[in-house]
Amino acid sequence: MLEAQVQLASLWKRLIECVNGLVNEANFDCNPGGLSIQAMDTSHVALVHMLLRDDCFVKYQCERNSILGINLASLSKILKIMDNNDSLNLRHDEDSDVVILTSENSEKTRKCEYQLKLLEIEAESMGIPEMDYRSTVTLSSGEFAKIVRDMNVFGDTVTISITKEGVKFSSSGDVGQGYTFLQAGGVFNVKPEVKAEQNEDDEPLTRKFKADPAAVGVEVTMDEPITLSFALRFMSIFAKGSTLSDRVTLKFAKDSPCMVEYSIDNVGYLRYYLAPKVDDAE
Amino acid sequence: MLEAQVQLASLWKRLIECVNGLVNEANFDCNPGGLSIQAMDTSHVALVHMLLRDDCFVKYQCERNSILGINLASLSKILKIMDNNDSLNLRHDEDSDVVILTSENSEKTRKCEYQLKLLEIEAESMGIPEMDYRSTVTLSSGEFAKIVRDMNVFGDTVTISITKEGVKFSSSGDVGQGYTFLQAGGVFNVKPEVKAEQNEDDEPLTRKFKADPAAVGVEVTMDEPITLSFALRFMSIFAKGSTLSDRVTLKFAKDSPCMVEYSIDNVGYLRYYLAPKVDDAE
Amino acid sequence: MLEAQVQLASLWKRLIECVNGLVNEANFDCNPGGLSIQAMDTSHVALVHMLLRDDCFVKYQCERNSILGINLASLSKILKIMDNNDSLNLRHDEDSDVVILTSENSEKTRKCEYQLKLLEIEAESMGIPEMDYRSTVTLSSGEFAKIVRDMNVFGDTVTISITKEGVKFSSSGDVGQGYTFLQAGGVFNVKPEVKAEQNEDDEPLTRKFKADPAAVGVEVTMDEPITLSFALRFMSIFAKGSTLSDRVTLKFAKDSPCMVEYSIDNVGYLRYYLAPKVDDAE
Repeated sequence: MLEAQVQLASLWKRLIECVNGLVNEANFDCNPGGLSIQAMDTSHVALVHMLLRDDCFVKYQCERNSILGINLASLSKILKIMDNNDSLNLRHDEDSDVVILTSENSEKTRKCEYQLKLLEIEAESMGIPEMDYRSTVTLSSGEFAKIVRDMNVFGDTVTISITKEGVKFSSSGDVGQGYTFLQAGGVFNVKPEVKAEQNEDDEPLTRKFKADPAAVGVEVTMDEPITLSFALRFMSIFAKGSTLSDRVTLKFAKDSPCMVEYSIDNVGYLRYYLAPKVDDAE
Repeated sequence: MLEAQVQLASLWKRLIECVNGLVNEANFDCNPGGLSIQAMDTSHVALVHMLLRDDCFVKYQCERNSILGINLASLSKILKIMDNNDSLNLRHDEDSDVVILTSENSEKTRKCEYQLKLLEIEAESMGIPEMDYRSTVTLSSGEFAKIVRDMNVFGDTVTISITKEGVKFSSSGDVGQGYTFLQAGGVFNVKPEVKAEQNEDDEPLTRKFKADPAAVGVEVTMDEPITLSFALRFMSIFAKGSTLSDRVTLKFAKDSPCMVEYSIDNVGYLRYYLAPKVDDAE
Repeated sequence: MLEAQVQLASLWKRLIECVNGLVNEANFDCNPGGLSIQAMDTSHVALVHMLLRDDCFVKYQCERNSILGINLASLSKILKIMDNNDSLNLRHDEDSDVVILTSENSEKTRKCEYQLKLLEIEAESMGIPEMDYRSTVTLSSGEFAKIVRDMNVFGDTVTISITKEGVKFSSSGDVGQGYTFLQAGGVFNVKPEVKAEQNEDDEPLTRKFKADPAAVGVEVTMDEPITLSFALRFMSIFAKGSTLSDRVTLKFAKDSPCMVEYSIDNVGYLRYYLAPKVDDAE
């Protein structure tokens, strides 16, 4: 039997919206350590990998590994019904062909139960390669979402260039061409200085950052400048992750898929991978 | 001549929206005691009955009975123009083929006048039967509207079950199946105890309830448990009444149409009737 | 070279929306005194004339007259990207076939640059006649926009009547017929009294009005009553100017195009002209 309960339905609501953007159905891989999803879009260009560790749940019980094939569009419809503040419990009894979602309001006067038929989804072996990302940018996830939206006005491809000075997103098309440049601010290969500053009080720096993420600028960590182009169609989907975290990290390596990562409150993450466009003239 | 004036156009705006959801045109039955509408949807499954007593109006003059056939879509368009806080006057001169609506802002610097052509609508005799409802549920009208919306995700039929413990709304379809259960709270066949409590102060209980309707839970009054199924299409229309009142009352009797009732500030009501689905395998 | 910079992109965003409603492309006429647009809609019934004087800009440099043919739909798309509070710079280098827009946030951490291809637009000589307008109404631009929206419910033509008492907008169609009457308030051919009042303090009257424009009623200045009919389709476009100014002035003369004018903070204006409907029975 699997039972996984979160205190607030809002986490699942936002999470499934992010995965549902890319794929229509997915296997939930449940094991004693937590719950994860790996799925590839139908065109086999983009990947999503979500992980929620067991300590993300107020209650988590999973004796042995199981795979639940879920129609994400149906799950999304059910999650939309739930109030953000409802508790949410996901249960699967061994040998059952349904997964049961129950939610309850905090006053415990309203209880909802939903049953979703499980699917047999052929698991594609995906093998997310361990990459040696040479250039990393962390920025406001809201700003990233806005830039992706803006670039859509010009074309269907965004070119991302990272230098010491900052990160540049550019696009072009019938309307004209345009770019947005974000200046690297605050932090640039800074680990040494950070440690020095940290002596002032005992809080680790990441904590301090978390306290006011909007105040943190664009952080660039890089070994070499890089320029890569990507399909905006997928970047627009990836940008939905801004509902999960105030910050997003983009990781790049030459001629390799990029990774777009949102951290989920130290108990998990949502990662997207996208192959670059190779023949993109202009 | 008929003249009926309300202080705030918002009442009419909301009311006509509720009736217009079910029927496109209707006869307004005006008599010295007030104004009423009875109409049946084209499929003859649902009925609406609205009553506004003369004391609902700041000015009401109606020497003799008259029937005004009104295109509700047109009336709705005109009402949408009006500000909620405008006064609204409805006038019909004897033998005239138009009804005249005038509205004025509170500063009396803007005056609007609209003329609507009257229609000849064949009056269907409807005969709303006096029913002996055996099971009654009163709940937040907003919650009722949300549950009806939620059930629409699963199917086109909602099954409503009433027991001492509370009321259960369930539905099923391609997505899966689900239910919402609301626990009976506060009041359950309570009239005696209520009277006892009432001694504390002289306000009648209904007043007290009106003061904070959201705090009142689900009230169930019943002689026997009952389970009936209804078309969600109509329940969705009935749920629009939540703009009229914080509370809605659902009344049921075996194999009979249910009644969905919204009280209008002690000066009238809006009632919907709907025949249950009989062959609903599930 | 032309360079024109405004402190807030919001002015251009709103302005181009107003012009883009009427025409898809337009010549920007740039000269040392400022920047103007004159354009006619494709049906040659309506005209728009926008003027921004050089002191509207924080930086304005234009050595000699130049004409920039701009696709307004594309420009509008780019302007929509910009934050209201971004600075906006428009630049055109001599002999270049693009115009360059750059914007920057106030913290100067984000910089955007867009290039728009210039068009060859055949300049129609338009000759806006100097009219002797005999009847003028100034009212809240928001109220004007609402009335135009309201009249659209009834028909495609609005009839505007001006008398000493006020201004009446009426329309009719399948739904019925209706009118809105705004009472002339406050000011009626008042120039003498105004001057008298002005002695109280040294502020000019227009200033006082600007301080609380909503409190000012409908101002009618007229030599003779007038009644004219206009296509609502164009009036709806003209009403968009309410984003530019709290007040709008309508000017009329017998059998002549009306003028709908929005003042832009004493540094420019947006004017629309529309020929009246002549054969409008009803």
